[in-house]
Amino acid sequence: MIEAKAVAAPGDLREGEIAVELPERFDASLYYIGRIHTPWKRREDCPKNPRETDAVCTIVLDPRWAGGLAGLETVSHVVVLYWMDRARRDLVLQAPHHYAERRGTFALRSPVRPNPIAVSVARLIRIEGNRLTVVGLDCVDDTPLLDIKPYFASIDSVPDASVGWHARQSKE
Amino acid sequence: MIEAKAVAAPGDLREGEIAVELPERFDASLYYIGRIHTPWKRREDCPKNPRETDAVCTIVLDPRWAGGLAGLETVSHVVVLYWMDRARRDLVLQAPHHYAERRGTFALRSPVRPNPIAVSVARLIRIEGNRLTVVGLDCVDDTPLLDIKPYFASIDSVPDASVGWHARQSKE
Repeated sequence: MIEAKAVAAPGDLREGEIAVELPERFDASLYYIGRIHTPWKRREDCPKNPRETDAVCTIVLDPRWAGGLAGLETVSHVVVLYWMDRARRDLVLQAPHHYAERRGTFALRSPVRPNPIAVSVARLIRIEGNRLTVVGLDCVDDTPLLDIKPYFASIDSVPDASVGWHARQSKE
Repeated sequence: MIEAKAVAAPGDLREGEIAVELPERFDASLYYIGRIHTPWKRREDCPKNPRETDAVCTIVLDPRWAGGLAGLETVSHVVVLYWMDRARRDLVLQAPHHYAERRGTFALRSPVRPNPIAVSVARLIRIEGNRLTVVGLDCVDDTPLLDIKPYFASIDSVPDASVGWHARQSKE
């Protein structure tokens, strides 16, 4: 649909990592609808997962979209989608440095993936105008925002879900 | 970053709905990495929410990305991101026909939003080559796939989350 150069793949591969050739063109396009402000200026400072931190973060929505927040003040948690714009997109097998084994991109929550969209659940503290105060994000400061959705426990919560490879890892 | 014409906004507004002018350019772009096959050929046939159905759906990943599935066979549930390519993108206030009141786009799970990315949790039945058999999706057949992630109960599950406006509505 939309023609564009594939993004360059910066950096080197770790042992066992496999990159594929990216498609020649993109199929759809995104608007950044705001920015996420967090205490972490560099990726290496970010918490390893969003439940590790009580840091208060601020989502600043572009004023254009602020009318879309009506009714959101009644929810306890939001699903936040954001764009991990620094990540390469061409790896299918990855060896994250904190895991011993390499795994497929779709078995990991790594930012490195064909479409680097992160999905995080955050607790909503308050909304003032176009600013949301939340707890539970772990991204770098100034991350581009893609979407905010209400979190419905009835469809989004699966307390007994399991990730076999991770459970085994944690026991080792 | 990427210049492109804003998509046309098809269809008419319902009473009370408010559209904004879309930004002049896009900021990032997506690859369709596969297709989701479901029993529903038209949007009006789809279940109203994914927990309403036991229908078995098939996610067919483009062979290019199949190596990314390594390790995913150990998970019980996946987060599936897909692109709702038929939705208009310019509404901030919406009046979905099954709700009495209009609400902000970000307080709804409607496909109509600036970036029409859906997030669904599905139970993984099996993986064979580049095909995943899952239960718990409610999209129309042939929907473009954007991402698959492992669902971690530790970060993704909030059983006591609430959506105030919806709880009140359900009681009415």
